[in-house]
Amino acid sequence: MSELPETPQEDHVEDVVQAKHLALEQDVREAVWDKDSRWLSRTLNRLHPADAADLLEQLSTDDFADAVSLLGGQLPTDIIIELRDEYRVEAVDVLPDDAVAAVLGELDSDDVTTILEDLEDDRRERILDELTPADRASFEQGLAFDEDTVGRLMQREYFAAPEFWTVGHAIDHARENAEALPAEFYEVYVIDPTHRLKGQVPLATLLRTPRDVKLDDIMEEVQSDIKGNMDQEDAAYQFQKYSLASAPVTDDAGRLMGMLTVDDVVDVIQEENTEDLLALSGVRSAEGTDTVLDSVKARAPWLAVNLLTAFIASGIISMFETTLDRFVQLAILMPVVAALGGNAGSQGLAVAVRAIAEREMDGDASRRAIVRETLTGIANGVIFAIGVAAIAGFWFQSVALALTIGIAMFATFVWAGFSGVIVPLGLRKMGADPAVASSVFVLTLTDVMAFFSFLGLATLILL
Amino acid sequence: MSELPETPQEDHVEDVVQAKHLALEQDVREAVWDKDSRWLSRTLNRLHPADAADLLEQLSTDDFADAVSLLGGQLPTDIIIELRDEYRVEAVDVLPDDAVAAVLGELDSDDVTTILEDLEDDRRERILDELTPADRASFEQGLAFDEDTVGRLMQREYFAAPEFWTVGHAIDHARENAEALPAEFYEVYVIDPTHRLKGQVPLATLLRTPRDVKLDDIMEEVQSDIKGNMDQEDAAYQFQKYSLASAPVTDDAGRLMGMLTVDDVVDVIQEENTEDLLALSGVRSAEGTDTVLDSVKARAPWLAVNLLTAFIASGIISMFETTLDRFVQLAILMPVVAALGGNAGSQGLAVAVRAIAEREMDGDASRRAIVRETLTGIANGVIFAIGVAAIAGFWFQSVALALTIGIAMFATFVWAGFSGVIVPLGLRKMGADPAVASSVFVLTLTDVMAFFSFLGLATLILL
Repeated sequence: MSELPETPQEDHVEDVVQAKHLALEQDVREAVWDKDSRWLSRTLNRLHPADAADLLEQLSTDDFADAVSLLGGQLPTDIIIELRDEYRVEAVDVLPDDAVAAVLGELDSDDVTTILEDLEDDRRERILDELTPADRASFEQGLAFDEDTVGRLMQREYFAAPEFWTVGHAIDHARENAEALPAEFYEVYVIDPTHRLKGQVPLATLLRTPRDVKLDDIMEEVQSDIKGNMDQEDAAYQFQKYSLASAPVTDDAGRLMGMLTVDDVVDVIQEENTEDLLALSGVRSAEGTDTVLDSVKARAPWLAVNLLTAFIASGIISMFETTLDRFVQLAILMPVVAALGGNAGSQGLAVAVRAIAEREMDGDASRRAIVRETLTGIANGVIFAIGVAAIAGFWFQSVALALTIGIAMFATFVWAGFSGVIVPLGLRKMGADPAVASSVFVLTLTDVMAFFSFLGLATLILL
Repeated sequence: MSELPETPQEDHVEDVVQAKHLALEQDVREAVWDKDSRWLSRTLNRLHPADAADLLEQLSTDDFADAVSLLGGQLPTDIIIELRDEYRVEAVDVLPDDAVAAVLGELDSDDVTTILEDLEDDRRERILDELTPADRASFEQGLAFDEDTVGRLMQREYFAAPEFWTVGHAIDHARENAEALPAEFYEVYVIDPTHRLKGQVPLATLLRTPRDVKLDDIMEEVQSDIKGNMDQEDAAYQFQKYSLASAPVTDDAGRLMGMLTVDDVVDVIQEENTEDLLALSGVRSAEGTDTVLDSVKARAPWLAVNLLTAFIASGIISMFETTLDRFVQLAILMPVVAALGGNAGSQGLAVAVRAIAEREMDGDASRRAIVRETLTGIANGVIFAIGVAAIAGFWFQSVALALTIGIAMFATFVWAGFSGVIVPLGLRKMGADPAVASSVFVLTLTDVMAFFSFLGLATLILL
């Protein structure tokens, strides 16, 4: 990971830290085996919740479940929230209903939504039934939003103040209502009597302004425009664009309804990046806790599509059976054209998918990208056509063969460059995720082009 | 992008917004052509710097350079900082030395470092020479750190207070020194007389605490441990783990030296993700402003390696020339085995690279992953061996051929599963970036396995 030069001493310090960590991991494992819930609970409580969660995730799946059921209601809520998605689902599965209900009462509203959405429908009903009607109504608000929208991520606790308040008024209010405010927040939202958002005052500004100044005079315009029913990706884009730590969420009428914080946004960014990276290689999803069955399910669908496309390529080859029968060299060289063309296509595809994800492919930019990719295909096509032709010609001592493979290689490169950018753009236009289905199309197209041009030309030139 | 159902009315509103934006873009373009610097400067100043930067990035490369040189010193510093890396470099290139020097004076220290590191060595010297020795010394501090370390990203402005201060004291200090504090910050760092970091007080906590409470009593432990010479990726990992908006940076003796904020960390996360995604497809780098030459340079190296490995695969095939000569069906089917095997390998590789990047591959987890991937290879191998054998056997009406391709397919799948996880883990162990070189190895290994097993078995069974 680190490319920094390290002195032997630093290495040593790291080794010691590592060894201590391994020893702690082993102690936790043994405590689970010995059912020593007292020691386990004390140890986990001593750590930062994120570190405690990390430690639990090091356990095998069975030990993890045992640890959670051993601790039961004693498993601190903070730790549950810090667990990676797949472990948190597992933990909530193992805990009894009343423990889950108790956990919900301690959480911020965005975390409540996270837990509730993991639950099976009937279990969620059962747990919500245990709550007071007021709690229940409040908890269900987050679930009213569609999955992957801002409404699911935001918290409904925030600090709002009317425009006519002074700085002193705001500070006094915060001191008197300390309990009702969220644990962390970075801005005071300024609202009018109808709860419409007028502006915001960063806490750093509030802090350095004299008590008698009105919020109205120091508030800044809210640049972001984040709605509860907005796709979480669009909100994440605004956080990046305006370098935000948190942002107010409004309804369609501009009324303040919640607050989104950057830690949740970072998770969204990571999720989207992971999805794109996996989708480009034809994997649906992947988690550290996946079983073999999960892995097979996540990968077999794309392999099945690939089975089909591979036989399409075979079909193309079989059209030239007579030619292949006479020149066995063609069979030997054929995969070279397909492999290089496929790689050129994947390269262009990766560049295009990244540019789309970072919103660099709007309007004029996409036209420029198509031209650039096609020209790159031509340039690399010339270079590698000459390279492949030289090696093949020398190997089989045939100018005609060199010419055949050279032209085919060039055509495949240009085609790969063009389809690597046009396929994802086309999929986006049709509303599909450009990362998901692109590689199937691009690789099939280049394979077909590679085999057809190489064997077709061979039939014309060599026969 | 958005998967939310949209009413026709919303569509209409979006169209209007989009049309307005395009009109503005065109106006800006024409202002550049007409050299109307007054209108341009007024228009850009009216927008949020991030929006103004976006607008400038929509221009063609030439128009963009013209716009920057037209504005000269009038181009607001905030906009320069908001430009994407490649545009910012371009803008600083076009601006005269004194304009750049003036820009530096207005920036936070982390942004100064960003600008300075973009410059050519001799130009940087020239610009630094124009500054007072004090400014120069302060500006050069950031550059003293290695590239991609926290020291380059952090700002040296922060709010620190001694332990014995009260809340009131801290607020009064902030009011009196409003100008010296950074524009944005989320915590007060508590230090001892030797400047050693003792803890932190989030502004939200400061706000709700009565004036006479000591910072010592409300400060919390700093969970992160971020050093100036730390790799920026390691710092980004801590931000994600502890859900931070900002964090103090210390030297090796624990003395406070700066502050890192989440907006810079988000950029690091995006950079690393982009690198991994591109590297997996054999692309070195990609920017929206890339020329064809940039693209060729970023992609030709891996294609050259692939040229070599493709001919290794050809060499394997040529070992079985006699067999191929007798059974042309083998040439037709051969690419099926290679394509499916290659895909299975890429899938495993993507999963492994993601898991390594998210630090899910430590200790026991990597052993579990190797077992899981191998078993997944076996499971998918069985499924697709049967599928491929059935289709091939039916197509060419030959049980022997079905048997041959089935066994070869199975062997290739298992091998692909195993090498997809063992290659990146091995590269990591050797200190190399697992995303960069893995696909070359994995794809070559599976190709060799595919051709060798299929043609070898054919020689044994069919001949």
